[in-house]
Amino acid sequence: MKLLFIGDVVGSPGRDMIKEYLPKLKEKHRPHITIINGENAAGGRGITEKIYREFLEWGAQAVTMGNHTWDNRDIFEFIDKAKYLVRPANFPEGTPGEGLKFLKLNELEVAVINLQARTFMPALDCPFQKAEELILEAQKRTPIIFVDFHGEATSEKQAMGWYLDGKVSAVVGTHTHVQTADNRILPNGTAYISDVGMTGPYDGILGMERSAVIHRFLTSLPVRFEVPKEGRTLLSAVLIDIDEKSGKTKKIDRILINEDHPFFH
Amino acid sequence: MKLLFIGDVVGSPGRDMIKEYLPKLKEKHRPHITIINGENAAGGRGITEKIYREFLEWGAQAVTMGNHTWDNRDIFEFIDKAKYLVRPANFPEGTPGEGLKFLKLNELEVAVINLQARTFMPALDCPFQKAEELILEAQKRTPIIFVDFHGEATSEKQAMGWYLDGKVSAVVGTHTHVQTADNRILPNGTAYISDVGMTGPYDGILGMERSAVIHRFLTSLPVRFEVPKEGRTLLSAVLIDIDEKSGKTKKIDRILINEDHPFFH
Amino acid sequence: MKLLFIGDVVGSPGRDMIKEYLPKLKEKHRPHITIINGENAAGGRGITEKIYREFLEWGAQAVTMGNHTWDNRDIFEFIDKAKYLVRPANFPEGTPGEGLKFLKLNELEVAVINLQARTFMPALDCPFQKAEELILEAQKRTPIIFVDFHGEATSEKQAMGWYLDGKVSAVVGTHTHVQTADNRILPNGTAYISDVGMTGPYDGILGMERSAVIHRFLTSLPVRFEVPKEGRTLLSAVLIDIDEKSGKTKKIDRILINEDHPFFH
Amino acid sequence: MKLLFIGDVVGSPGRDMIKEYLPKLKEKHRPHITIINGENAAGGRGITEKIYREFLEWGAQAVTMGNHTWDNRDIFEFIDKAKYLVRPANFPEGTPGEGLKFLKLNELEVAVINLQARTFMPALDCPFQKAEELILEAQKRTPIIFVDFHGEATSEKQAMGWYLDGKVSAVVGTHTHVQTADNRILPNGTAYISDVGMTGPYDGILGMERSAVIHRFLTSLPVRFEVPKEGRTLLSAVLIDIDEKSGKTKKIDRILINEDHPFFH
Ligand SMILES: [Fe+2]
Ligand SMILES: [Fe+2]
Ligand SMILES: [Fe+2]
Ligand SMILES: [Fe+2]
Ligand SMILES: [Fe+2]
Ligand SMILES: [Fe+2]
Ligand SMILES: [Fe+2]
Ligand SMILES: [Fe+2]
Repeated sequence: MKLLFIGDVVGSPGRDMIKEYLPKLKEKHRPHITIINGENAAGGRGITEKIYREFLEWGAQAVTMGNHTWDNRDIFEFIDKAKYLVRPANFPEGTPGEGLKFLKLNELEVAVINLQARTFMPALDCPFQKAEELILEAQKRTPIIFVDFHGEATSEKQAMGWYLDGKVSAVVGTHTHVQTADNRILPNGTAYISDVGMTGPYDGILGMERSAVIHRFLTSLPVRFEVPKEGRTLLSAVLIDIDEKSGKTKKIDRILINEDHPFFH
Repeated sequence: MKLLFIGDVVGSPGRDMIKEYLPKLKEKHRPHITIINGENAAGGRGITEKIYREFLEWGAQAVTMGNHTWDNRDIFEFIDKAKYLVRPANFPEGTPGEGLKFLKLNELEVAVINLQARTFMPALDCPFQKAEELILEAQKRTPIIFVDFHGEATSEKQAMGWYLDGKVSAVVGTHTHVQTADNRILPNGTAYISDVGMTGPYDGILGMERSAVIHRFLTSLPVRFEVPKEGRTLLSAVLIDIDEKSGKTKKIDRILINEDHPFFH
Repeated sequence: MKLLFIGDVVGSPGRDMIKEYLPKLKEKHRPHITIINGENAAGGRGITEKIYREFLEWGAQAVTMGNHTWDNRDIFEFIDKAKYLVRPANFPEGTPGEGLKFLKLNELEVAVINLQARTFMPALDCPFQKAEELILEAQKRTPIIFVDFHGEATSEKQAMGWYLDGKVSAVVGTHTHVQTADNRILPNGTAYISDVGMTGPYDGILGMERSAVIHRFLTSLPVRFEVPKEGRTLLSAVLIDIDEKSGKTKKIDRILINEDHPFFH
Repeated sequence: MKLLFIGDVVGSPGRDMIKEYLPKLKEKHRPHITIINGENAAGGRGITEKIYREFLEWGAQAVTMGNHTWDNRDIFEFIDKAKYLVRPANFPEGTPGEGLKFLKLNELEVAVINLQARTFMPALDCPFQKAEELILEAQKRTPIIFVDFHGEATSEKQAMGWYLDGKVSAVVGTHTHVQTADNRILPNGTAYISDVGMTGPYDGILGMERSAVIHRFLTSLPVRFEVPKEGRTLLSAVLIDIDEKSGKTKKIDRILINEDHPFFH
């Protein structure tokens, strides 16, 4: 089975890319399941119920999150009924929402796990330990387990990839908003990439208006970052081909759509 | 003119890759100049004079560094006479070595700048301000200016790329040890990539023995990291094609050599 | 001459303490000069022109700042005409405001320097280097030099104290909002304390509503911190006795006013 | 009952202070129990079995630790049989040693808990959650519960103090090596101080040779820190007076012994 995962969607330019290209990508690649990281979908900060529903309407089956999960306070209103929203699992017990969701797909079932790293990031429960726990739970139902590991440091992401090699179908990094070129199949059949990259403004900095970000680096003054409303855009994704029986992955391909890498059918 | 830049060489597996593939890469791509990031060349931590000399013998014209510059104390003995070693320029005044070096190349001259980022990294002078200063100095002699920006955060690296767009030939990131897929030519002719990636063990974590790194993430106990002596290796590089007159770049291609991406002549 | 320095004033409870106790402290200790750290004076975040003027009316001669300098955007409107406002000097060149101000006091002159540390704090220019520069400038006019070193880490603060020992009259830490008990005269005559502590709510956490702060530590969810409007308050200060001729300090006493340490005249 | 707690003992100068003053302090204050933080006792980094035993011989009943627990690898050899050594409890399950120990004292029993904070410190399990767990366990045996909370940030320490107010006898901070002046009894009977301060060199920086530390701040170069062998020393402690029945604390006094605050009997 094929799984399409689209990296951090930033603001309306990112959502427009999803709306435009998700149908084309689905037509071209025929994924059985599509997952979108939506932690920046609402103006760069969090997600709203409306956006979440749009993602499902446009063809996604699940939405993962990250450190920006709670930025838009709308989330607290709808997360508990959002059956296909997966937030980082290693927030402390009692946190609204869930970090492991199961997607039914004809006779297949896919477990979707979201975890957040800790290096250069806020304190959370151990993502490695939590991964183990959730994988044990998931394995009772399905060998097809997808992990979105949301983190900053390449060391922690690679560590997670190797730690879960052979236990899950894929460990796919998000959060840095830059696609890495290290997509590979680890020796025991787990697909890995350090970061899928982002979907949204192509000429911003991490998708935000670049003059503001540069201004902050130059002046150390506080600056409000906004998603630029105009300009070129990109979409970043991976396409993963998983053996349904074993849960092992045969192939992980990177997808980039931008003016330098136009989409061809 | 073509410039070949090879990312963070880690330990003897990394050096072996240089020795084996640098001649082949030079034969294939005919770069006019080759630069190697050597901050991890000596057992993962710093560089020795012997290694520095080997890099030059094997065909490099310059060696850039990073946050590990000073890890091997040998550096203090030879840095001041190492004409082709470039350390991060934004260490405070009075630091041994230099952060801007000029390479003569027949009638051409290439300015090589090394800078270190500050986000999630130790305190240093402002790399943006230092970049401006050095570029003014370099532009008096040549329009061909190469910047190795050694940093962790994609935001700071992208900010540097955009900040220097049109002022230098290339801003090339190092330090995360993972090649990114965002190589591009910015609108004003500067080549950019967030990270070139590393050269050394292919199955380690950032090039270090992976069991030790995983152990640290699982236990939070101190662990000594070593470069594995055996196993598969990779080489990460970029090939940049610069217009000699204007210093603007026409093309930046990624190079990965590993078992999943074998070298073809 | 005697210098009274009052640590980080937080919100209206802090301002109320100044209004009430500054006259009493002045009557009791007869300081020749009073300086207030006002970085949290406006609702915990920054300062307004109105508050700055009140501090002067209530008897202060200068107001120092810190990492919260720019939180209330009012500052950009009035900082350039605020003759007695001193912001951290090691913001990059071109930053509004100044980090060294001179206060005339009959025939005496006092140099007031504000610097911000870098450990566990945002990137800025080197505070040690900037200190040296400003001290050279100040020494041309007066031997009486007061430094408010705004920082998190005790190591960096102690390092600054020892580095400036004999060059300035006092190095007084701010920012942690907790008074330290290490006030002392260093061997070459510089008064030192790692942190003067804060002025404002006594039963909050760093002066903010404590339930919100605890909630954040327990849940890792984003929480808006507010200064509690009611409740017990404290004032934290130091009284420094400086030899006018030499600029050396003879004595640094801690002052704490709260229900556990009531003010006595 | 009276509890004497002595803050981070640094190297041989710190141990010498214990040897000399612990008997005097015991004679003067007659504590029923003495606890020492020993995380820096062996040359500034960790502890050895010999030192641990000396502390007990010299009159301590327990030794707490912190982020330096594992620096001296001797610890792995003896921690499991060291009945009175308490390491931070919120290391992950499976970590050698324990974070809660009970001390018998005639008919009394004292629970000693060590926890490590996470702000500006390495990732660990949540200290707040772990505190709750251990307190439930401890309360089954005794109302007298002492917590050494080893941390950097005043916010996290104050949060712990208030969070545990009424549940434990004392929350006493360590790690910054500077004694704070905020010792107090919180409204529900818990003694609190943000940091007890260190025991060792008085003229170093956090107890380490100060020229090396200053050199590092000035140059950003790696420097090996050593405990100075000579020079003036200090001892930092608190004396806590706990009601044996309720476990509530009536009084917490700071103790500083150095040339500026000589010991008087
Ligand atoms: Fe994101
Ligand atoms: Fe993120
Ligand atoms: Fe490196
Ligand atoms: Fe590096
Ligand atoms: Fe403050
Ligand atoms: Fe502050
Ligand atoms: Fe310590
Ligand atoms: Fe510590």
